[in-house]
Amino acid sequence: MPALDVFAPSVDLTRAICDIPSVSGEEKTLADAIFDAVSPLEHLDVYRDGDTIVARTHLGRDRRVAIAGHIDTVPINANLPTRDIEVDGEPYLWGRGTVDMKGGTAVQLKLAAELVDPRVDLTWAELVDPRVDLTWLWYDNEEVDSDRNGLTRLARTRADLFAADFAILGEPSNGQVEGGCNGTLRAVVRTHGVRAHSARAWMGENAIHGAAPILARLAGYRPREIAVDGLLYREGLNAVRIEGGVAGNVIPDLCEVEVNFRFAPSRSVADAEAHVRSVLEGFEVQIVDAAAGARPGLDAPLAQEFLRAVGAEARPKYGWTDVARFSALGIPAVNYGPGDPLLAHHDEERVSYAQIEDVERSLRAWLSGS
Amino acid sequence: MPALDVFAPSVDLTRAICDIPSVSGEEKTLADAIFDAVSPLEHLDVYRDGDTIVARTHLGRDRRVAIAGHIDTVPINANLPTRDIEVDGEPYLWGRGTVDMKGGTAVQLKLAAELVDPRVDLTWAELVDPRVDLTWLWYDNEEVDSDRNGLTRLARTRADLFAADFAILGEPSNGQVEGGCNGTLRAVVRTHGVRAHSARAWMGENAIHGAAPILARLAGYRPREIAVDGLLYREGLNAVRIEGGVAGNVIPDLCEVEVNFRFAPSRSVADAEAHVRSVLEGFEVQIVDAAAGARPGLDAPLAQEFLRAVGAEARPKYGWTDVARFSALGIPAVNYGPGDPLLAHHDEERVSYAQIEDVERSLRAWLSGS
Repeated sequence: MPALDVFAPSVDLTRAICDIPSVSGEEKTLADAIFDAVSPLEHLDVYRDGDTIVARTHLGRDRRVAIAGHIDTVPINANLPTRDIEVDGEPYLWGRGTVDMKGGTAVQLKLAAELVDPRVDLTWAELVDPRVDLTWLWYDNEEVDSDRNGLTRLARTRADLFAADFAILGEPSNGQVEGGCNGTLRAVVRTHGVRAHSARAWMGENAIHGAAPILARLAGYRPREIAVDGLLYREGLNAVRIEGGVAGNVIPDLCEVEVNFRFAPSRSVADAEAHVRSVLEGFEVQIVDAAAGARPGLDAPLAQEFLRAVGAEARPKYGWTDVARFSALGIPAVNYGPGDPLLAHHDEERVSYAQIEDVERSLRAWLSGS
Repeated sequence: MPALDVFAPSVDLTRAICDIPSVSGEEKTLADAIFDAVSPLEHLDVYRDGDTIVARTHLGRDRRVAIAGHIDTVPINANLPTRDIEVDGEPYLWGRGTVDMKGGTAVQLKLAAELVDPRVDLTWAELVDPRVDLTWLWYDNEEVDSDRNGLTRLARTRADLFAADFAILGEPSNGQVEGGCNGTLRAVVRTHGVRAHSARAWMGENAIHGAAPILARLAGYRPREIAVDGLLYREGLNAVRIEGGVAGNVIPDLCEVEVNFRFAPSRSVADAEAHVRSVLEGFEVQIVDAAAGARPGLDAPLAQEFLRAVGAEARPKYGWTDVARFSALGIPAVNYGPGDPLLAHHDEERVSYAQIEDVERSLRAWLSGS
């Protein structure tokens, strides 16, 4: 494995880290390469926990910005190694991870290496002065269960490393700023009946038929749009799974409908649960999973400066992302990274060179105060 | 394996053939024992095809009655060998096959051996004169797919062996006469949608929500009761399976509802299909399986004589049985056997001695004209 050149152009660095496969659970090779590349940098204190790496400056600035990116990907589907392609005449990097989210992580690695305090004894040319202290977090297992997520682990063992006044998560957002995120809750709704031979159906009670009003309520549900800190969040309540049946000649005694409620960050998890229970009143509802959303917090001074500097209008983020972890700690956080989120996890995942370079340029400009 | 004594009391014969396990596909040992027991009987022409055995008299009578019983059982579940137990002070035989349907088959074996023409040179005492020619059919694989059923095979290779003026199937009917049977049809109803991330549900179309009207129509369906040849058949239309969902964060693009329609024997399969399609109009309906019912045909002279002789009032049979095979050939057919059909396939399957003996007595009386 050749050493990672974190001073290479950000597109080249994206290509290099995409070509080190790092499906969730198998990030060690890439984590080793990142650790080896950033450890020698004198302006960074580097901490490693499993395959999560934290690198911090200690420049004595009175404000600190945390910038995070996961290093894992969803499984490869014949889309590695990367290829350089053209789309409508524009150069693109194609392959697993290019969008979600090694383009963003590559930009972070490059800026982590290059943004140093000029008072440090310098040995390379392009050094620039960051205006804030920086905490870089590159973490594993974002694409799988929350329990395995490197940030979950870090929050348990070293919560102090999250301390910051503002956070940026490099998830793909088409180079736009997406503030906060919706929360998400999953629940299983069950109907019960009585088994019987289907030739004598009247001796039983059909649990699948009993689910008719559940589906009718979901089909008739009108999701709300809720303004939070100036951004309009669109909610949604959907069946994502339904299951019932014993055999082709048996009246079923159980039907399960799994629902997913995506809720505006102004609602707490408890509010979200109460809402789902009220929509499905009269049915057995079991909450199986819930994560609060994140308020965009764009009224924070650093957030305002950031928005002005990158010249983007903030939009709401609908999908749940790890920004919620910062939000839960009271740290305003946004999503900002190259790549079209609709192409994340797609077999034809691809990112334009221009978006990677734009994000690098804007982030560098803001952080260095130029 | 001791030879089967087909002249033993019918309860003992039931016990003996239950204790020769014969789960569908594994009937050879029992079929061998039956074949060896009936082959020496001079008044019977015995034909064997795989594990199906046909034994016929040729007494020159102008009418012929076919009497059939399957020799297989559903899988054993720690309920063999048989045990003699008491229920409310009455003796019962407990164990797999006692109800479905070795009690009935044992009665048939005994009567097949004992009902002979007195003009034949006799060597045993209890011989009685049957008033009709008889065709006994003991067949394999009734409890599994119709394709494997011994009668399906026989209908292909020796349809002539089904010829009869009246047929009796020894399926458990609590010693009552159950005429004909309902038909059965299974169909899969599908809704289609468009996949999307559940965080952006408005970009997709939820196929599970699309199934709401299907369940509402099934839940609101009022099954009919239809009189056929004087018996009242109760119909039923039920969901027996529902399935949909891709992942916990994906709007599903497909939902399948499998329905089972049990229909009166006055409807053809085509009528039944048209009815299901009209109830589910507007949805994609695929018929996956259908079998016509059987009219009870109790106005046939032999059926009338049989009812008078056994002194029972005929009831409709709701479950589909092999009587439909005879009905399809224009042969009136009834279900008549010992055992409570609700205990068939039950782990506590058990039959009272009295029911076995009653059925033997009634059938013998009618067939011998005494």
